[in-house]
Amino acid sequence: MAKSKASASVDLWMVGSIGIDDVQTRENDRKGLLGGSLPFATAAASFFAKTGSVGVVGSDFPTAFEARWKAFGIDLSGVQHQDGATFRWACRYDGNMIERTTLKTELGVFADFKPMLPEAYRQAPFVLLGNIQPDLQLHVLKQSVGAKFVALDTMNLWIDIAKPALLKVLKRVHLLTLNDGEARQLSGKWNLRECADALMKMGPSYVIIKKGEHGALLFSKKGLFIVPAYPVESLKDPTGAGDSYAGAFMGYLAKVGKVNDKTLREALINASVLASFGVEGFSLERFEHLTQAQIAKRIRELRRMMSV
Amino acid sequence: MAKSKASASVDLWMVGSIGIDDVQTRENDRKGLLGGSLPFATAAASFFAKTGSVGVVGSDFPTAFEARWKAFGIDLSGVQHQDGATFRWACRYDGNMIERTTLKTELGVFADFKPMLPEAYRQAPFVLLGNIQPDLQLHVLKQSVGAKFVALDTMNLWIDIAKPALLKVLKRVHLLTLNDGEARQLSGKWNLRECADALMKMGPSYVIIKKGEHGALLFSKKGLFIVPAYPVESLKDPTGAGDSYAGAFMGYLAKVGKVNDKTLREALINASVLASFGVEGFSLERFEHLTQAQIAKRIRELRRMMSV
Repeated sequence: MAKSKASASVDLWMVGSIGIDDVQTRENDRKGLLGGSLPFATAAASFFAKTGSVGVVGSDFPTAFEARWKAFGIDLSGVQHQDGATFRWACRYDGNMIERTTLKTELGVFADFKPMLPEAYRQAPFVLLGNIQPDLQLHVLKQSVGAKFVALDTMNLWIDIAKPALLKVLKRVHLLTLNDGEARQLSGKWNLRECADALMKMGPSYVIIKKGEHGALLFSKKGLFIVPAYPVESLKDPTGAGDSYAGAFMGYLAKVGKVNDKTLREALINASVLASFGVEGFSLERFEHLTQAQIAKRIRELRRMMSV
Repeated sequence: MAKSKASASVDLWMVGSIGIDDVQTRENDRKGLLGGSLPFATAAASFFAKTGSVGVVGSDFPTAFEARWKAFGIDLSGVQHQDGATFRWACRYDGNMIERTTLKTELGVFADFKPMLPEAYRQAPFVLLGNIQPDLQLHVLKQSVGAKFVALDTMNLWIDIAKPALLKVLKRVHLLTLNDGEARQLSGKWNLRECADALMKMGPSYVIIKKGEHGALLFSKKGLFIVPAYPVESLKDPTGAGDSYAGAFMGYLAKVGKVNDKTLREALINASVLASFGVEGFSLERFEHLTQAQIAKRIRELRRMMSV
């Protein structure tokens, strides 16, 4: 049963998965971590804007997780509590943190997730449709009346099994974010410029193609912006990097309140930096002791690394 | 027998391989192309500075190749003509031009190559030791008296079979350029920042780690500069891209005549642009009708793509 909660107005809301993760790396074996796309994305966004969360957890979801998540100042009134098990996921990284093997995926209450937008989120101008089933992305987007700038993240699974639904929701979004392999899969092209041209024809005015450690490309009708990844020195856990990236990107836009060539580029720099912090710890651990001064310092560093 | 030739003073000289290549791509099957690291590197450099060439060809080397190469204004007085066969190399690219299969490597006269520096090159301040056996790189470097800034390119083969010789010549060079896999192999580290720190301890003050389509990283004691690859729209043949990159980089430095943080960064932008043109044709074909205006236009474009 969904619980009713007091709900505050937000600048930005996001929908995505909420999970309990087990993550193995060469040096660590961590179990029962707060995971899923939504905690990473909202935590990264919370450094910039008041962020609302739309997701679902089961009756086994620890109250401690909720408390830690809320400590970022994130609104959780869109998080439904259902009887049953929270989404569980486990993975193992190879020694160099490049290849990932999924060891377990148990959808639990996420299998029957019907996202519901809290009343207080309906006027919010910025929306991130995190990586969930495209029909659900459309379902929750339709509940918004104030959405001015909608970004959508997706993955190979939905391109494989739900492409018609994905194409339908793509017509209603302003920005699509996906990785290079997914861009090629969805567009049927290889050259990333041709991919982006094909993807923009599907609806979005902007396409961000993420290349992990190699950075990202932002395509629009006006041109191309290339932003490197901030080169991380102490990589602990890459899980959630793409979600933190997307979350910080939208958080930054929501903070400045307008979308143009300049703010989009600034947003990508901020996204690159937030993602670089996120992978320095498991789950939200690095974000929990991240300061605005640390963010500002790394942004200055990244700008220096990019400036000719 | 080495022929004696008139020789002009140069700003920059390079040593490397000269070959006759066969290249297969999905769309083309080209045989008997002018190839090897030296023609690509010198051709790219020729857009910036007077460049000398040190290499060897066999008696089967077409005079037409020599004429086309010379047409760039490149000095060829360091190219020895030996009795025997020119170095021959053949490869096939996969459909996406990512994976390359070497089909043939016949060293010919390159097997007994002893590079000799023409008198007129000895005072040249800029030197690129292209990817040849490290003992030969050292041998030819010792013939220079005026070298002020020496860059060295290498490959996995020499790290495998001639590491002691490579470490010896590295002590005498200012800049090392290699790809990410080679950087990891030579340093024994994975994280590219740690790789660069380890490589700089081997001698060079600067390390360029090339990541192909993902751009390059320039490391120095003063910091890190990240330069994207210019995103190519019509990739015809990736052969020689790294050589064109290194050649244009050194050509630009030789043109401005000084090495500092600013000129190194400018040199990398120019290198990225020249490499992007080079892969738009087979062999030196794209360079043969490349104009300074086209270079300048693409440099402006790349700067715009990088600017926040």
